[in-house]
Amino acid sequence: MGGMYEDLKGPEIPSVLSESSIILLPVGAIEQHGPHLPMSVDRVIAEKTAEAIVAKCGDELDIWLLPTLSISKSNEHNWSGGTISLRYETLMAVLNDIGESLSKTNAKKLVLLNGHGGNTTLLNTALRELRLNHLLETFLIHPALPPAYGGSSTEDELGMGIHGGRDETSVFMFLRPDLVDLGKAERRVPEKLAENKHVKFGGSVSFGWLSNDFHKDGYIGDPTGASPELGEKLFNAAVESLCEALSEIKSFKFKE
Amino acid sequence: MGGMYEDLKGPEIPSVLSESSIILLPVGAIEQHGPHLPMSVDRVIAEKTAEAIVAKCGDELDIWLLPTLSISKSNEHNWSGGTISLRYETLMAVLNDIGESLSKTNAKKLVLLNGHGGNTTLLNTALRELRLNHLLETFLIHPALPPAYGGSSTEDELGMGIHGGRDETSVFMFLRPDLVDLGKAERRVPEKLAENKHVKFGGSVSFGWLSNDFHKDGYIGDPTGASPELGEKLFNAAVESLCEALSEIKSFKFKE
Amino acid sequence: MGGMYEDLKGPEIPSVLSESSIILLPVGAIEQHGPHLPMSVDRVIAEKTAEAIVAKCGDELDIWLLPTLSISKSNEHNWSGGTISLRYETLMAVLNDIGESLSKTNAKKLVLLNGHGGNTTLLNTALRELRLNHLLETFLIHPALPPAYGGSSTEDELGMGIHGGRDETSVFMFLRPDLVDLGKAERRVPEKLAENKHVKFGGSVSFGWLSNDFHKDGYIGDPTGASPELGEKLFNAAVESLCEALSEIKSFKFKE
Amino acid sequence: MGGMYEDLKGPEIPSVLSESSIILLPVGAIEQHGPHLPMSVDRVIAEKTAEAIVAKCGDELDIWLLPTLSISKSNEHNWSGGTISLRYETLMAVLNDIGESLSKTNAKKLVLLNGHGGNTTLLNTALRELRLNHLLETFLIHPALPPAYGGSSTEDELGMGIHGGRDETSVFMFLRPDLVDLGKAERRVPEKLAENKHVKFGGSVSFGWLSNDFHKDGYIGDPTGASPELGEKLFNAAVESLCEALSEIKSFKFKE
Amino acid sequence: MGGMYEDLKGPEIPSVLSESSIILLPVGAIEQHGPHLPMSVDRVIAEKTAEAIVAKCGDELDIWLLPTLSISKSNEHNWSGGTISLRYETLMAVLNDIGESLSKTNAKKLVLLNGHGGNTTLLNTALRELRLNHLLETFLIHPALPPAYGGSSTEDELGMGIHGGRDETSVFMFLRPDLVDLGKAERRVPEKLAENKHVKFGGSVSFGWLSNDFHKDGYIGDPTGASPELGEKLFNAAVESLCEALSEIKSFKFKE
Amino acid sequence: MGGMYEDLKGPEIPSVLSESSIILLPVGAIEQHGPHLPMSVDRVIAEKTAEAIVAKCGDELDIWLLPTLSISKSNEHNWSGGTISLRYETLMAVLNDIGESLSKTNAKKLVLLNGHGGNTTLLNTALRELRLNHLLETFLIHPALPPAYGGSSTEDELGMGIHGGRDETSVFMFLRPDLVDLGKAERRVPEKLAENKHVKFGGSVSFGWLSNDFHKDGYIGDPTGASPELGEKLFNAAVESLCEALSEIKSFKFKE
Repeated sequence: MGGMYEDLKGPEIPSVLSESSIILLPVGAIEQHGPHLPMSVDRVIAEKTAEAIVAKCGDELDIWLLPTLSISKSNEHNWSGGTISLRYETLMAVLNDIGESLSKTNAKKLVLLNGHGGNTTLLNTALRELRLNHLLETFLIHPALPPAYGGSSTEDELGMGIHGGRDETSVFMFLRPDLVDLGKAERRVPEKLAENKHVKFGGSVSFGWLSNDFHKDGYIGDPTGASPELGEKLFNAAVESLCEALSEIKSFKFKE
Repeated sequence: MGGMYEDLKGPEIPSVLSESSIILLPVGAIEQHGPHLPMSVDRVIAEKTAEAIVAKCGDELDIWLLPTLSISKSNEHNWSGGTISLRYETLMAVLNDIGESLSKTNAKKLVLLNGHGGNTTLLNTALRELRLNHLLETFLIHPALPPAYGGSSTEDELGMGIHGGRDETSVFMFLRPDLVDLGKAERRVPEKLAENKHVKFGGSVSFGWLSNDFHKDGYIGDPTGASPELGEKLFNAAVESLCEALSEIKSFKFKE
Repeated sequence: MGGMYEDLKGPEIPSVLSESSIILLPVGAIEQHGPHLPMSVDRVIAEKTAEAIVAKCGDELDIWLLPTLSISKSNEHNWSGGTISLRYETLMAVLNDIGESLSKTNAKKLVLLNGHGGNTTLLNTALRELRLNHLLETFLIHPALPPAYGGSSTEDELGMGIHGGRDETSVFMFLRPDLVDLGKAERRVPEKLAENKHVKFGGSVSFGWLSNDFHKDGYIGDPTGASPELGEKLFNAAVESLCEALSEIKSFKFKE
Repeated sequence: MGGMYEDLKGPEIPSVLSESSIILLPVGAIEQHGPHLPMSVDRVIAEKTAEAIVAKCGDELDIWLLPTLSISKSNEHNWSGGTISLRYETLMAVLNDIGESLSKTNAKKLVLLNGHGGNTTLLNTALRELRLNHLLETFLIHPALPPAYGGSSTEDELGMGIHGGRDETSVFMFLRPDLVDLGKAERRVPEKLAENKHVKFGGSVSFGWLSNDFHKDGYIGDPTGASPELGEKLFNAAVESLCEALSEIKSFKFKE
Repeated sequence: MGGMYEDLKGPEIPSVLSESSIILLPVGAIEQHGPHLPMSVDRVIAEKTAEAIVAKCGDELDIWLLPTLSISKSNEHNWSGGTISLRYETLMAVLNDIGESLSKTNAKKLVLLNGHGGNTTLLNTALRELRLNHLLETFLIHPALPPAYGGSSTEDELGMGIHGGRDETSVFMFLRPDLVDLGKAERRVPEKLAENKHVKFGGSVSFGWLSNDFHKDGYIGDPTGASPELGEKLFNAAVESLCEALSEIKSFKFKE
Repeated sequence: MGGMYEDLKGPEIPSVLSESSIILLPVGAIEQHGPHLPMSVDRVIAEKTAEAIVAKCGDELDIWLLPTLSISKSNEHNWSGGTISLRYETLMAVLNDIGESLSKTNAKKLVLLNGHGGNTTLLNTALRELRLNHLLETFLIHPALPPAYGGSSTEDELGMGIHGGRDETSVFMFLRPDLVDLGKAERRVPEKLAENKHVKFGGSVSFGWLSNDFHKDGYIGDPTGASPELGEKLFNAAVESLCEALSEIKSFKFKE
């Protein structure tokens, strides 16, 4: 079984949700993505990926989808009027309250599906808080792992297609072609950074940055070569891979 | 003009949003609604109402719809595993952060469309905080005003159809007939309360209650007579009336 | 029995307070009330009403009066130097701490008697928090219910005598005639608002406002016709009505 | 001039309060004081002392009396049902909000008159916070300085008449003889402590204690010799001395 | 036994720490101390004193030394760039978290050794919080008790050698002569204050002050006569006296 | 130039610290590390590494060393009495306050040297907060990057030598051989995890874990082959590499 969490009726919860159920929470963002993409990118990708996951392996893995957390921590874009961001403490409080609520059901596994790289470290911190305080088993997955946390971006972008770059733009073009204006996109790769050995995205030294630190346009990567075809391939591969990951999550046990 | 806020591109914000724009934020809830209704009721009603409003008068009134805040303060249902609730301080923080973000755009009018009666007093408090701290003009509207705050419920329910009662059930049947199990519904009206002159819903004395204080089933009202036809009528009337209200909001000025 | 809570000696508490006792907490405010009234208005009215209640029905109903919370949330008057206001989170913390303290006695019923309309929504929210977190039965009463929450104001004020208007001024003239300077009062009714169908005090759309949004003088209503005679009548009627309400509160039970 | 702060009308504030005005805030407590005294002791003493000060030197020194903060931090008595205590962070928030409000007037000097020894260190901390954050000149005075902070108690009590002891009981007997039941009082001096050189009240080593750590009765001192005559003497001396102190406060300047 | 707390191995804790163990936490500060002393003064004195205590009586009294809390609340020096200060709520949170952690060991006695007078009232408040919330026995000791809290300073400084004055400078010269530049020191005693009967350091009226309120140089006292010889004498006397105090702490019991 | 930050005198700060100065803050931990290592491991490694860095390249790179933050967030070890942990919000508050203090100097670059993997995600989050709120350029470096964040551990440990494993034990043996009891160490590698493709340390799916989730001994890795010689090699390599990284940090500029 599996489906939309919110479609359950209150008295059904104890019998429908069990220790082997997986609760899936997509986390989006409403934030500027340059002139070629709308603010919805991360919300749409997180939600569509989650829905595709549920369609593909939800029944098999007993996955229950929560409504998307559409707004999250996007404060690297606070300079850009229109971006809507929660403070880090607000987002942690939201996650805590959701975790506390879920801890009163039989479900024990909570998976955050994060569409916004700016949340990654905070959500990772939250995994432990939720495990410690609410005894949940907690996991974090990404439609596309941010390069700064072990993922990859195209070679041509020198590994720096991290916000509105080729891959993200492609996936979004596949999902909502009507909302992309590729003609406005230019190459916005901070080439200088690639010369560094340590201080760079995914390097041994991480650093605090705002999205207009590198260029006033606020996107990082080279979306000019994006295409819906590439997006489709990436999207499908992500769904495939995430179903595989969720299958591991389902059978995951700390101790034998 | 008008539409989905999130579909805007970052650089468009300054020219698209103006002082006369209205930002509309639907507030839902994921909480038990008895055995006949799913947990999604308030989220669905708030979102569908908001979408219908935008379809009907969004362009005329320059309304921009934010993604629904699906989860809010539902702690009167904390006893019921499955309900997902934010603490009051978390919800206030979320609203504050959204308000602060919006205050950096040209838009000045923020309207909360609240689908969950349990939020009403807190959202009312938030109206002033957002006005004071972020200089917004703030408004609160309801698809159906809760009886405890001046709205009405059917006479047959003695004015106490406040959670999963006839009207709400009807509206939801109209929107999602597949998710209603009216056969499980019974009359759950705390008749005794009607004998009171002061201490009752909508009476001069308000009181703190949890949804299982009156009956372990946790819904309050009599959904047995609900029908999609009644729901359709109520829904359309609400959209009509709220467009009228939004038109007043658009021209609202504190001083001449 | 009944009396001043603070006059009890520590070791007496367990025997004097019982499940049927009512703890009464007056909530005042120290805030500007225009040029004709002192900042004490809400504090004085809340406290005097509470004292009159205890004198009239305290013994019969086993009411124990707490010291008045003189300062509360008055941030709609923050623009006016001299007003003393707690933040909403501070007031909630104060109420929570008082509730937690009381939960260690045998008393179970806590009644807030609120003299300041600006507190109403927050206190209503607090009712549920105190019930949930400290298992108290909680109630909110008003010497005069604010028009925005179901109360009435004079027809001549178009229902907008909400801050320093005819009724409030009259009651205060009855209680402290020495502190009223009616000669300074003028009609300050935002007539324009009355033309609205939805967006008005007590209308279906509530809105965030500061007391100088309508007029720089910061009071709302028409005190020019106020008199101590009217005040006496209103005051006595309130005490009478509130004793009746407290009698309902005393016998209030959620379940049979 | 001088008087009750709350009796001022909003528009008068700018002309009445000046840089040389003193705002006086009595801080009481509602907490167990043993079997011989009511919970009101600290509130009554703080308030009556403040009123006597205003009567004696208020006009001369331009003192404006705020309503008493009746409830404060009494958590050393949390074990005793009936005691009403704010958390330390709540009390700090209350003081901060009052300080912030006052900072918008012309008055610059805020004096806390503390009737409850359990507040002393926190109020001392608050003095600096209010000076730093709201630019006030802040002072702390006591009707009777607690022995642990440099004050004295009777020799016969070995300097440990710190809660419900001879002096406090006497002062309260003078103010409210009807509320004292001296027949219930016994000697409750933790004699053992007097043998210590360092670890004792007013010693070089301070220590955390709860009022039932020493004896389950929860008062500390020997009230058996208390009398209203002694109380009157102490009360009058305090008022005299505090007017003298306030006179120093009035002319206090950090720099020449 | 006794030693460095951090040198213990996890599994040893239950057997090594017992109810009679004393945990010692030095609290320093990194804050400006005038032109003659480095910012480290309070950290160095607290740490060196603690180490000397452990060397002298640690084994006998079963004292376990925690790493120094180097940074604390120094906001009276916020005006001076370079000073590093925690907010009061941050420091309280740090102390609470440490106390909560320690409460899971067998040790029951926690002693704060405070090198910075600006912390004294807050740490005193913390003593009670830690006792109440984590059931620890808590104590506060000082290398040199600040004059404002019952300690003394030289007569020649009129009792006002409270920050960078003769005694403190001397002790630091003994510990780190290489870091003192006595040639830059001048007499900075706010002589005027000595004329006050009430409002002065250690007087009956305490007051909020910042370190540049008296003089822009920010130190208070007269270090010109400081010497390492005096410092050595003071330091050794402090260690001697504190070992004596810790011996009282070891045998301290609230009840017989 | 370069040295100990705390050794600076207040008035020197403006001339000594410049935009090109680097402030270095070592972050340690006091937490169980199994039976073979003391609780000090992370504190010692962070501090010693920082000191070696300052000795090697501090003058050249103008590095100023802050006192080690000895205690940090170790809540994955809360189950083990003796571990001392700050809550995540406390640690964020500490970092914020330090950042705010530093922002008042001329220095603009703050580098956190983190010795405890459990802090990594939170410190990464803090980098952005400090950049946004206090306009600092912020960096995070590790003596040994945790495998879960892109670092490596020995092949023989299947990449899971993450807490008390071979490398960490070796480095500590080099620094404090007297405090290691290798005879108590055993292989504690959760071999099962290595079979996973996604859910493992450094895998595409991160997960919340407590240190006793895998084995009650609470360390993870295989320290049996540790040696001071390996430790020396690792330590020196780290210092070398970090000086190189700090050199990049020194010349780091967001924009050309």
